[in-house]
Amino acid sequence: MKDFFNVTPLDTVFSHIPLFSRAGTESIDILSAVGRVLAEDMTSPEDVPGFARATMDGYAVAAASTFGASEANPAYLSLNSLVAMGEAPDAEITSGAAIRISTGGMLPNGADSVVMLEYAAEIDAVTLEVYKSAAPGSHVITRGEDVRKGQQVLSAGTRLRPQEIGLLAALGIARVPVVKKPVVAIISTGDEIVAIDKIPGPAQVRDINSYTLSSQVTAGGGTALNFGIVKDNYDTLAAVCRQALEKTDMVMLSGGSSMGVRDLTIDVLNSLPHAEILVHGIPISPGKPTILARAGGKPVWGLPGHAASAMVVFDRVVRPFMAHVAGMAAVHSDPDYRAVATLSRNIASAQGRTDFIRVRLQKTDSGLVAEPVLGKSGLIHTMVQAHGLVEIDANTEGLEKGAPVSVILL
Amino acid sequence: MKDFFNVTPLDTVFSHIPLFSRAGTESIDILSAVGRVLAEDMTSPEDVPGFARATMDGYAVAAASTFGASEANPAYLSLNSLVAMGEAPDAEITSGAAIRISTGGMLPNGADSVVMLEYAAEIDAVTLEVYKSAAPGSHVITRGEDVRKGQQVLSAGTRLRPQEIGLLAALGIARVPVVKKPVVAIISTGDEIVAIDKIPGPAQVRDINSYTLSSQVTAGGGTALNFGIVKDNYDTLAAVCRQALEKTDMVMLSGGSSMGVRDLTIDVLNSLPHAEILVHGIPISPGKPTILARAGGKPVWGLPGHAASAMVVFDRVVRPFMAHVAGMAAVHSDPDYRAVATLSRNIASAQGRTDFIRVRLQKTDSGLVAEPVLGKSGLIHTMVQAHGLVEIDANTEGLEKGAPVSVILL
Repeated sequence: MKDFFNVTPLDTVFSHIPLFSRAGTESIDILSAVGRVLAEDMTSPEDVPGFARATMDGYAVAAASTFGASEANPAYLSLNSLVAMGEAPDAEITSGAAIRISTGGMLPNGADSVVMLEYAAEIDAVTLEVYKSAAPGSHVITRGEDVRKGQQVLSAGTRLRPQEIGLLAALGIARVPVVKKPVVAIISTGDEIVAIDKIPGPAQVRDINSYTLSSQVTAGGGTALNFGIVKDNYDTLAAVCRQALEKTDMVMLSGGSSMGVRDLTIDVLNSLPHAEILVHGIPISPGKPTILARAGGKPVWGLPGHAASAMVVFDRVVRPFMAHVAGMAAVHSDPDYRAVATLSRNIASAQGRTDFIRVRLQKTDSGLVAEPVLGKSGLIHTMVQAHGLVEIDANTEGLEKGAPVSVILL
Repeated sequence: MKDFFNVTPLDTVFSHIPLFSRAGTESIDILSAVGRVLAEDMTSPEDVPGFARATMDGYAVAAASTFGASEANPAYLSLNSLVAMGEAPDAEITSGAAIRISTGGMLPNGADSVVMLEYAAEIDAVTLEVYKSAAPGSHVITRGEDVRKGQQVLSAGTRLRPQEIGLLAALGIARVPVVKKPVVAIISTGDEIVAIDKIPGPAQVRDINSYTLSSQVTAGGGTALNFGIVKDNYDTLAAVCRQALEKTDMVMLSGGSSMGVRDLTIDVLNSLPHAEILVHGIPISPGKPTILARAGGKPVWGLPGHAASAMVVFDRVVRPFMAHVAGMAAVHSDPDYRAVATLSRNIASAQGRTDFIRVRLQKTDSGLVAEPVLGKSGLIHTMVQAHGLVEIDANTEGLEKGAPVSVILL
């Protein structure tokens, strides 16, 4: 097959990521911050916990008072009143004394460990029998054991999971600086495309890409801004692109993979202010006719028109760029988690390009089986049937039935 | 170690899932529907595409006109005008004729295949030379090849991914019936807990669980409704629980793992209208003191107070219940995707319970390595350091350094 243009290797494509600007920052309530990206390093203003706490129900003691205790030879301690939850104990533990304490309670002065309920018995109101020697520090979280004052606890570029939100809560940080969600312009092009609420005439098809790409942007933590369907006309497309570039952090056109229209897209991207075409074709299938331009620090993409192709390119190529714009640190080098499966039949692959094969996963007694989904890349139902993609690299001619494969989950 | 209560095996816990009511339904714009759960089966109202389309730039032909063509012995066809995108071709292809067509264009009547550009040359304005025999149907998507009219395309209980949204767009379905996001009440209990905007006094700690659990609910596709911090007092807690039960689809209390307070939680749950305690302790660590009640068709949970324990219980136990309330079909039997890694050191585990060990993943040349995170389960920083959990089942005493492990990603 003839190559219509020189393609850019994927490593080179990804090397452009640092060229692009990040979205701005804002301060938000931590209750709304899950999934957002931290804009600044965070340092702890205090020790957490601020006091030594019991991690079990039992008796706070000085461990030394129990040394040598056993079932045969118990230690006898004088029992004081209970430590109430949320109150500093007024009693002090002296050698030979014990005080009842609940999980989370504050250890009284002089206590350094907790004897669990099952290793002790209250003989009478003032006497505790202990059957086991307690090690100093046992069943206790010491002051600052979770977080020390002044410690850097989170770094800029971290995507906040529920546990990071919990850590911020523990530190009393109720609002947090995050990178704004990137706003992504979505433009569908093509004289044959009609809005989804229209009945397509002969030769017309409904706009799928505005919906798949918007959903991918949303699911990936961005905000999609739809600019609708634009005809294959230079002036109209150039005007919409300029407007999109002004209002958003990244622009995605899709459609126009056919020869004449691709030239139109290139001309329009070249006409944008401070524009430079960085990528014009990539060695992957589906997705070869992908274009990347840089216009004033913002990425502008020309994606294939086929819905499945555009989705694969978004997932495998565009996503790390969007993550960069969203402020994520070093996302492209993060472990790329994949499911492990066995291939159900041979698949062929051309050398010199990376193939992404749609697969459906089935759970069997011997693990997951990946069944390739048949059908042309223009068919949206092939993506609906697929659970994921198997990547076949450029140096592999194909994979045999029974081969272990790692599956990129969609 | 003595058991303070009889625990319920996990299989039994999960067998209760179908007892609970699902959230209501609503109709929403498909642009907002990614991640939502379909409430009804969907059937295609039409064929997609509605006409035969080219999948390549080239020439629409009747394949029979090219049979036997080769470089040495080309076929000569009469060339007609271009098929414009989005318009029904007015020409009809007769035997021996060809017409230029772009990817996505509508095949004229009489044409059944497309000859790719590289296998043909325009000799003059009206003559096409073809170097290769075209198979009938090549480079063509036929009418209804993607979706047939009347075909069931999606089933109730499906979580909508970008490709499902695209399929709905292709069918002209702009609004879709989905199950409402489950509203989950979150209540933190404990006399020692203070709001995060307060400076904790001696023996007091800030409320972490309201934030971690809310974030887990949000990230899992629910809506968290916070009822704040409630003291360990029967009347107050019972009143807040009743209010929460009225306003939401599921209630989660956390805190109060210590003996006396757990009894208080049980008493409060038993006092709720039509309440039944289903689970009182589960054989997992962390997370043993977990309580599940059913009150009027809604799940009410008593989760451990330690932040890390409550998070693990939410992820491993509560989540499938929430997915059921959210309308998801058979979620608990879905493949549970895990990352594959090698353990960096021995870990011990008690038989008779399932241990969830927090691990940090590191990418190495020989794959991912899982490094257990040390630290007591009461420490939130252990969850921040962890990328995931390694599950050690009840019949395994421990795992050795170098063992392959599958990691549940957090």
